Amino acid sequence: MSSVALYSARGNSTSNPGDSQRLNGQSTTPLDAMPVAVYDLTEKSLRDAENELVTLLGAERVITSLGERITHSSTEWSVAPGGDLDRHSFIVHPKSTEEVSAIAKICHKRRIPMIAFSGGTSLEGTLAATTRGGCCIDFQLMNKVIQLHAKDMDVVVQPGVGFEELNAQLDPQGYFFPPDPGPGAQIGGMIGQGCSGTNAYRYGTMKDWVLGMTVVLADGTIVRTRNRPRKSSAGYNLTQLMIGSEGTLGIVTEATLKLTSAPRNIRVAVLAFKTTQAAVDTAIEIVQNDMPVAALELLDGFTMKAVNQAGYCDKQYPEIPTLFMKFAGHTPQSVQELIDRVEDSAKRNGCQSLEFSKDDKEVAALWMARKTALWSLLAMKENPEDKFLSADAAVPISRLADLVEETTELLNKSGLIGSCLGHVGDGNFHTTVLYGGSDKDKARQIISTVQKRAIEMEGTITGEHGIGLEYRDMLVNENGPGFVDMMRHVKLALDPYCLLNPDKLFRVNWDAKRD
Amino acid sequence: MSSVALYSARGNSTSNPGDSQRLNGQSTTPLDAMPVAVYDLTEKSLRDAENELVTLLGAERVITSLGERITHSSTEWSVAPGGDLDRHSFIVHPKSTEEVSAIAKICHKRRIPMIAFSGGTSLEGTLAATTRGGCCIDFQLMNKVIQLHAKDMDVVVQPGVGFEELNAQLDPQGYFFPPDPGPGAQIGGMIGQGCSGTNAYRYGTMKDWVLGMTVVLADGTIVRTRNRPRKSSAGYNLTQLMIGSEGTLGIVTEATLKLTSAPRNIRVAVLAFKTTQAAVDTAIEIVQNDMPVAALELLDGFTMKAVNQAGYCDKQYPEIPTLFMKFAGHTPQSVQELIDRVEDSAKRNGCQSLEFSKDDKEVAALWMARKTALWSLLAMKENPEDKFLSADAAVPISRLADLVEETTELLNKSGLIGSCLGHVGDGNFHTTVLYGGSDKDKARQIISTVQKRAIEMEGTITGEHGIGLEYRDMLVNENGPGFVDMMRHVKLALDPYCLLNPDKLFRVNWDAKRD
Repeated sequence: MSSVALYSARGNSTSNPGDSQRLNGQSTTPLDAMPVAVYDLTEKSLRDAENELVTLLGAERVITSLGERITHSSTEWSVAPGGDLDRHSFIVHPKSTEEVSAIAKICHKRRIPMIAFSGGTSLEGTLAATTRGGCCIDFQLMNKVIQLHAKDMDVVVQPGVGFEELNAQLDPQGYFFPPDPGPGAQIGGMIGQGCSGTNAYRYGTMKDWVLGMTVVLADGTIVRTRNRPRKSSAGYNLTQLMIGSEGTLGIVTEATLKLTSAPRNIRVAVLAFKTTQAAVDTAIEIVQNDMPVAALELLDGFTMKAVNQAGYCDKQYPEIPTLFMKFAGHTPQSVQELIDRVEDSAKRNGCQSLEFSKDDKEVAALWMARKTALWSLLAMKENPEDKFLSADAAVPISRLADLVEETTELLNKSGLIGSCLGHVGDGNFHTTVLYGGSDKDKARQIISTVQKRAIEMEGTITGEHGIGLEYRDMLVNENGPGFVDMMRHVKLALDPYCLLNPDKLFRVNWDAKRD
Repeated sequence: MSSVALYSARGNSTSNPGDSQRLNGQSTTPLDAMPVAVYDLTEKSLRDAENELVTLLGAERVITSLGERITHSSTEWSVAPGGDLDRHSFIVHPKSTEEVSAIAKICHKRRIPMIAFSGGTSLEGTLAATTRGGCCIDFQLMNKVIQLHAKDMDVVVQPGVGFEELNAQLDPQGYFFPPDPGPGAQIGGMIGQGCSGTNAYRYGTMKDWVLGMTVVLADGTIVRTRNRPRKSSAGYNLTQLMIGSEGTLGIVTEATLKLTSAPRNIRVAVLAFKTTQAAVDTAIEIVQNDMPVAALELLDGFTMKAVNQAGYCDKQYPEIPTLFMKFAGHTPQSVQELIDRVEDSAKRNGCQSLEFSKDDKEVAALWMARKTALWSLLAMKENPEDKFLSADAAVPISRLADLVEETTELLNKSGLIGSCLGHVGDGNFHTTVLYGGSDKDKARQIISTVQKRAIEMEGTITGEHGIGLEYRDMLVNENGPGFVDMMRHVKLALDPYCLLNPDKLFRVNWDAKRD
């Protein structure tokens, strides 16, 4: 065990976080009212915890190898790169809700932080990096589809099930689970993140597809949030409180997911426009008229150039703002009817070129450009060591074209390589900036300018990627400090020692290793 | 001022509710760990508060007349009938978020309970009755549509706006706000209740149509939960925490609602079946095949009999289980295509009679039976003094026919008049039991049997009506005490003195006037 105590207790272990706020009956906890930290990350505490965990799980399910600790601490996708100080003290592999509860009780008793880990695809440093050492709870052995209720159209799963594997199992039976974040994502992280993806315009986001869950709280209490009915008004919506809480309020150990029928008669359209405004105006018409397209994506001219250069696709596209759309329906006729309406709208908005898939092969070929857009962009790196930062702004759709155009101008002026692509139907788009070592501040400046403008347009800094470590300070600007102080207050109530994924989403004002 | 102190402080006024739980870092608050109550409802406290409120709002907006206090304390729909002890001490009429915040600060300082009041249509005693006196915050002067963002398809409203008035304003412009609870409901209560209605199968419930809100917390803090983008992953979903919290966590003073395009080409179908199972099997086929019908309602044979007897409709219907459906679409052709599919499915399931509207007049005429179903039932009262109780169970749809049939048998055996009708597409149905004074226990027994069976079927005791006062003890059975203890813990964090709509949703274990 090489970990050292980074944070020793500064109060006694029965101090009461949040005391001063609660004494006055207050409903929020500002940063300067935070209680003292109670972590015990001394070598003795960690060794004792490890021994107890080995007794609980067996040595083979308590991992302390440096290699595993490094791979669990960050990924090449994360803005929080990880480092010597960022490693978990150990990684455990529970097999059941009861084991997760027992692990939480051990960590709670010893004041050791816990981070849940499933697919590890987070971008903003939410789950893939720790700030204080502690216990990583890896769900790789809790990857079962527990039960499909076909007639009710729901499925009960463990947190280590990947959405791609789930859909591969469901599709032959005619069912579909719509949320589609980054490849490799698993249900636990998808709930933590409140994720979405290209299917969100038609189907909504993760919050719309979880009926209930079993969650282990910081002190090991097991809570079931809801049963399986499609609709419920039974008490606080703790399901929704958990979704998007980035692992800071509880650890999801089981979830009941809603399903729909698998989309059929899929077709794809690629429509290129002279201006972003013309592309967005077409999208607005589609939204306004409630046309049920299955996906509605915008790639800017630079992304199209990257797609052409990367060569994943057979063909060359015009390097101008381009809408990628998916259609699906019960009959080929209803899909064609929808396509006709979209085509009509696109032409009225001055569409420069239209292409519609004619068969399933063309569906895959045309969608390939959208699917590989991020990889194509990253292939534009001038130096393999270059990094990237991304913004994930979402704005009311009437302001989307303005923000994309402002962002393009920012990127052009900066001299850095970057692009805009995203989920135009939701008003959400990703700005990706590539940068070399010396340009990090310049890249950050672009991202934060885009975020500030999104807020000014009554939007959000994150439509789907979350806050994690990177965007905590910017979040305060979005809805004012009251919102963050209320979050902090809820956190302190449910996790008084701040053991679950600490430092994420908002600051706690204790000695922090990171700036 | 005739109110007397029902609850005087038993701890000192700076005692810290929840201390013992938080001292141990716990994540839940069981009933026996509740702190002592701190209310101050002495005559002096109430008089001082009233004086401060008059200074703030003027005497004309601080109401103490007995008549108003009676009409605000209950309605003929509420299971909590109200009485001498159930009246608010005074009613205030704020005009702005800032005034609500100032009112909350006055009540918080003096430890006086607060209940928000908008449409007053709650059934389960959620909002329309107080248990401890205190301040009723009536939103009748905050009834403005603040801004329609047509291009973004959202609208900013105050809590006193009725959903019917809102849609009357929106429809001529082609927009639609789908949630449709009881007539007279207003946005504030609809958020508090997490309501739905006949449109929920197609459009989802209140939780799907609120983008963000401004909320005043128990101590008067003003929090804005989200901006206007259609999608956000920016921190805890405090919007969803508020929706369905029955006014116990905060007071909504403004909401941004999502809109969709107004339904066109509406048609209605009435389909009668020999058995409940055959009707539900048809509904299941519709759900399984994702057929986008606009409403999917089931009325049992007894309800159809009540409809025939009440005479609101021009015609007589077969008195057997009947599906009422609505259809809407972009073109008459797409609606006809859907109707053909539904007709095919109904016939395969042995439908006894089918009727489809041919014009708008027939749409209204056929839907009238569904619309007047509850009134028709109440007209079956043997004695005008008779009361009614209702269950609001929702189960996975595969179990719906079983539960409806079991319930019908229960009702038949009991000798009481009652029926089942509801939102079959959501697995949700209402059991209404009429009873005379001496049969209250018998009626309660039926309701609680239905609720217990719903829980055994992995369902919920309430699909849309909420818990209020009446079903607090049954809620504990639904997901176990951990769920309720976690709710109580969140409540104590955000409202440490339990000032907001106390005693609703769960017990607080203080001297309670009610059993």
